[in-house]
Amino acid sequence: MLNTIGILSPGDMGHTVGDVLRQNGLRVITCLDGRSQRTRQLTEKAGIVDVPTYPQFVTEADLILSIMVPAQAMSATSAIAEALQQVDTTLTYADCNAIAPQTVRQLGDIITAAGGMFVDASIIGPPPRTPGATRFYASGPQLDLFSELNNYGLDVRALGAEIGLASAIKMCYASLTKGLTALCTELLTAASVLGISEALTAEFQLSQSALFERMEKGLPSMPPKARRWIGEMEEISATFAHVGLTPNILTGAADMYRFVGETHLADLPPEAHDEFPNLAGLIEILAKNLKSA
Amino acid sequence: MLNTIGILSPGDMGHTVGDVLRQNGLRVITCLDGRSQRTRQLTEKAGIVDVPTYPQFVTEADLILSIMVPAQAMSATSAIAEALQQVDTTLTYADCNAIAPQTVRQLGDIITAAGGMFVDASIIGPPPRTPGATRFYASGPQLDLFSELNNYGLDVRALGAEIGLASAIKMCYASLTKGLTALCTELLTAASVLGISEALTAEFQLSQSALFERMEKGLPSMPPKARRWIGEMEEISATFAHVGLTPNILTGAADMYRFVGETHLADLPPEAHDEFPNLAGLIEILAKNLKSA
Repeated sequence: MLNTIGILSPGDMGHTVGDVLRQNGLRVITCLDGRSQRTRQLTEKAGIVDVPTYPQFVTEADLILSIMVPAQAMSATSAIAEALQQVDTTLTYADCNAIAPQTVRQLGDIITAAGGMFVDASIIGPPPRTPGATRFYASGPQLDLFSELNNYGLDVRALGAEIGLASAIKMCYASLTKGLTALCTELLTAASVLGISEALTAEFQLSQSALFERMEKGLPSMPPKARRWIGEMEEISATFAHVGLTPNILTGAADMYRFVGETHLADLPPEAHDEFPNLAGLIEILAKNLKSA
Repeated sequence: MLNTIGILSPGDMGHTVGDVLRQNGLRVITCLDGRSQRTRQLTEKAGIVDVPTYPQFVTEADLILSIMVPAQAMSATSAIAEALQQVDTTLTYADCNAIAPQTVRQLGDIITAAGGMFVDASIIGPPPRTPGATRFYASGPQLDLFSELNNYGLDVRALGAEIGLASAIKMCYASLTKGLTALCTELLTAASVLGISEALTAEFQLSQSALFERMEKGLPSMPPKARRWIGEMEEISATFAHVGLTPNILTGAADMYRFVGETHLADLPPEAHDEFPNLAGLIEILAKNLKSA
């Protein structure tokens, strides 16, 4: 039975998930050890309880959701495994991060070796503020507890008993959305430097209007997320290479997010929509950053 | 005044362009020296006259359109420049190929050094069988003759006096259409190998229906064009690198077309629509080719 959910860590996505679960009747806790001031504020805002130590955290939680940037997933898993070995408790640990299937299998081995149960999970869609917009995919041999989240405001979809399937769907899906965004950012920046922005925009409006509309809507809100997408693109690149496909498209996408991440726009919080430039303004800033490089 | 157009070479795109110009009252010639049997057939079909030597070709033609795969553009330009130096004639040479602006400027220097006038041109859209579907962009200091094609069934749009602008718009445009196709091909192939095709398709139909429809419509007819797109992706990669952006997304797209080009589907002629598999069938073939690699 599900009573207490642990969330690591309550950033933009994590605190919104916690908020939904709390509003649907679950107790939500976290362990903020070493987290940023922004994460502390989001935690308080979402009514999530901060417990002081990892051993206490794994003892109180029935299910822990790991929601963070890919680069932190391994050390978070190790910290939980270490705490699990110090206390006598039953815990299910769900890695919900955008990481390669082959890496998720390693995380699963660490948790099960420490006596926990492991779920491979992934999140497709925005932070679940609007019902119906976000899916939580899950795979693994022990999905019962995670699937119960369906009763607490989340849309959970089970993919099968194999660890790696939930991560795989995330990798392939995000390669389309974020890979396309990287490609569009690159070609519009190149067009600006090459002096053909106006003609290209007219051509896109004529023959690629749906894609151009997507650029106008999607690109301006991307820079605050660019830095954390670098690691995600690298995970997808590793996923594709692992099955024998080229890593280059996605390492190129990582390059683009690294480039965008170096601009001042990447310092804006993701919710500061009023401060985002429009598409033309964004591309102008990127083209200038390129020229000064 | 425009009387005779030379086309090098009358492949899928070139013979259709020649056909349109001929139907609109121009004489259309070519020089098939060393061309394939398929190109000879297309030439006859389009009523294009084959003249035996390059010196005769440049003497009879008022304007030559170079329409071929990127890798051949330089040697075609050199052959025309050589012929120009052997005869006393006035000629405008338009390179219409998908090549990087910095490369087009080199071609321009070769033609002007040989006494010809040079136009940077590019073609956006399919072979111009349907009026309104295809644009011919042009840039350079001497556009008068090329712009006259507007009176003979083509849609010519002048971009300015600088050699490189017409190539730049082609590079940026094709990076979107063919870069996206490469990305979609890769992620669907990966999904198939990773065992999540069905769930990913359902997720795409739910949250990315426009893009998924584009895949269903566009991907099956891609393999017969994959081999000639390799060089085009490499030209775009060089274009982006030249302005300081990452080459990797587009070298990855070239990798994908190289991979597709190794399958038997790449041997089909581009007009053999009845023999193309559907999207699921295409991806199944690609995934199998990957596994056996």
